[in-house]
Amino acid sequence: MLHGEAIEPPPLWLMRQAGRYLPEYREIRSKAPDFLGFCFDPDLATEATLQPIRRYGFDAAILFSDILTVPHALGARVWFAEGEGPRLEPVRDARAADALQFDATKLAPVYETVRRVRAALPASTTLLGFAGAPWTVAAYMVEGSGSRDWIEAKRWAYGRDGFDLLIDRLVDATVEHLALQLEAGADAVQIFDSWAGALDPAGFERFVIEPTRRIVGRLKQRVPGARVIGFPRQAGALYPRYADATGVDGMSLDSGVPLDWAVGAIDRKVALQGNLDPLRLLAGGASLDASVDAIRRATHGRSFIFNLGHGVLPPTPPEHVAQLVERVRA
Amino acid sequence: MLHGEAIEPPPLWLMRQAGRYLPEYREIRSKAPDFLGFCFDPDLATEATLQPIRRYGFDAAILFSDILTVPHALGARVWFAEGEGPRLEPVRDARAADALQFDATKLAPVYETVRRVRAALPASTTLLGFAGAPWTVAAYMVEGSGSRDWIEAKRWAYGRDGFDLLIDRLVDATVEHLALQLEAGADAVQIFDSWAGALDPAGFERFVIEPTRRIVGRLKQRVPGARVIGFPRQAGALYPRYADATGVDGMSLDSGVPLDWAVGAIDRKVALQGNLDPLRLLAGGASLDASVDAIRRATHGRSFIFNLGHGVLPPTPPEHVAQLVERVRA
Repeated sequence: MLHGEAIEPPPLWLMRQAGRYLPEYREIRSKAPDFLGFCFDPDLATEATLQPIRRYGFDAAILFSDILTVPHALGARVWFAEGEGPRLEPVRDARAADALQFDATKLAPVYETVRRVRAALPASTTLLGFAGAPWTVAAYMVEGSGSRDWIEAKRWAYGRDGFDLLIDRLVDATVEHLALQLEAGADAVQIFDSWAGALDPAGFERFVIEPTRRIVGRLKQRVPGARVIGFPRQAGALYPRYADATGVDGMSLDSGVPLDWAVGAIDRKVALQGNLDPLRLLAGGASLDASVDAIRRATHGRSFIFNLGHGVLPPTPPEHVAQLVERVRA
Repeated sequence: MLHGEAIEPPPLWLMRQAGRYLPEYREIRSKAPDFLGFCFDPDLATEATLQPIRRYGFDAAILFSDILTVPHALGARVWFAEGEGPRLEPVRDARAADALQFDATKLAPVYETVRRVRAALPASTTLLGFAGAPWTVAAYMVEGSGSRDWIEAKRWAYGRDGFDLLIDRLVDATVEHLALQLEAGADAVQIFDSWAGALDPAGFERFVIEPTRRIVGRLKQRVPGARVIGFPRQAGALYPRYADATGVDGMSLDSGVPLDWAVGAIDRKVALQGNLDPLRLLAGGASLDASVDAIRRATHGRSFIFNLGHGVLPPTPPEHVAQLVERVRA
C-alpha cells in the first residue's frame, strides 16, 4: 500500500487500533504487572496486535509496543505511573546523553513479537513496525514525562549545547530498532513525531526534518526496499516540506489538515494517510459517516491510506469502529 | 498599525507582556484574593496593564483581563484554583446553554480599567481590548477546565444538538463585550481562539470561521472603524481561509507557522502578527537574535506586527525581553 498507486476503497487501519477501547484488550492487559512488561511479553503483545485484525479485518496490523522502549534500551529508566502516563529518569546534559548506549538485546521480546505476528497474520495483511522520532523521544527523555509546552526540552534544544548529541544517539538507535523490526518480518515502519508541532520552523528543520532524513536514508541502505511512513503531527504548513525533504514513502496527517489543500500541496510520490478526527469516531452517527465520505471524496484518485489523525480514544464505542469500517469500504 | 501599511521597524507588543515574569507584577498580584478579583479591580488591572509599557515601551498595551470573564458575566461560575488553572461549572446541554444571559454590568470594572489605561497611556501607544472566541470559551465551559483533547466539548460539538445555541450566546456576548471595550477607549481588539487547532476542517469552518465572521461583521456595524485581530491558534494550513472568510484586519500566527509560506499564502490586506516562539525568548542569547532577524527578513515589506506565537512564559528572564525589544528595533 506504499507503492504510489491509488486503491479504491483505500487500505484502512487505525492508530491505537489495539488498546483500551476493546474489551478483549482490557481483559488481557491485567495479566502483566505493568505496561512495559506487557509490551515485552511476546504472548500478550502478539495477542493485543492481532485482536483488532480479528474483530475488524483491518488491512494493516501495527505492532503493539511503545515509543519509550527505545530510551529503555538506551539505559534510561522508564516506567508508567498508573493513570498518569510515562515517567523517565531525565536526561538534561551532554554527559547524560553521551552515556546512552543502545542495547538491542533488551528489545529481543519486541522482535520476537514481530516474528510471531507476521506468522499469524494473513499474507494480505500488512504488518507495520514503528518507532518514535528522535525529537519526540528526546522531548520525553528531557522532561521526564509528557508535557504541554515541552519547556525543558525546547530550552535545551534552542539554547544550550549537547542536544544534538542526544538526537544523534536517538538517530542511531532508531535506525537499529526499525531495521531489526523489518528483518523480523515487518512489511513497513512508521516514525511517530507526535510533538513535531511544538517546534518553530527553524527547530522543525533541525530536529524533525534532518534526523528523519538521516534515519530514512540509512534504513533504506541497510534494508533494501524498506518502506517508511512519517508522522510529523501538527506540522501544519510544513507537511509539504517534510514530504519533500525526508525521503519518506508515506506521510500521516493529523485531523487539523484540510485534505483538499494537502492533496494539492504535497508531492504525489508520497502516499497520504489519515486524517479522521478521533472525536468523530467517538461521536459516531451521521457526523462520522459525513466525515468518512468527505475524506474519501478529497483523496479520490490519490495514493491514500484511511486512518485517524491521532489514536483511537479509550472511551470510543467498538461499534463505532465497525460503522467506520463499513462506511470506508462501502 | 492595522491599516495595511508596512512599518519598519515593525510595531511590537507581546502576548502576556503583563504577567508573572515581571517582579513588579508578582508584587501587586498578591494584593487581590484571587485572579478574577484581580482582573475586576481597576486599580490593580490598570497598573498591571501599564507595567510592561513603562519598562519596555511596547507599541501596544493589552488590557489585563481574562477570556473567562465572559462566562462569568453569562452567569456560569468561574474560579481559578491556585496552580491548577481555571475551573468552571460545566455547561453540557441545550437547557444550560439557553439559561445563559450576558450581564454587562458584571464587567463594569473591566470597562473602567480600559478608560483609565487609555487616559494614562501616551497617545502613540495603541490600547488593545480582547475576548476569547466562541469555540475556545465554549470548550472551557463544556469541559469545566482546560484540557488536552477537549473530548467533552468536541463530543457535544460533533455529535449532539444544542452546541450551536451555546456558540450563538457566546457570539452575542462577545460582540457586546468587545463593543463596550472599544467604546471605553480601546483602539482595536483581538479575538483569541487558542484551541482552534483542536478542530477538524469541518469543525473549524462551523465553530471558528462562522462565529468569528458574525462577530467581526456585527462589531464593525456597531462601532464604525473597529479594527479586529484574529488568532486562530494552530490553524496550520487553514490560516489563509480564516483571513479570507472572517473579515479580520489582522491575524496572529502561532510559532509553528513558516512565515515565508504565510507571506505568500495570506491575503495582503490582512496584517500579520507573530510569531516568535516563546521558548526562543526564554532561551535568550544568539538563538533569540537569530530568530528575531529571521522573522524581520521574512516579513520585510509586509504589514506586520512583531509578537510572540503564544504568551510570555512565567520563567522568562525580563532581560531577555529587553534584548528582544532592542533587536527588533535595531
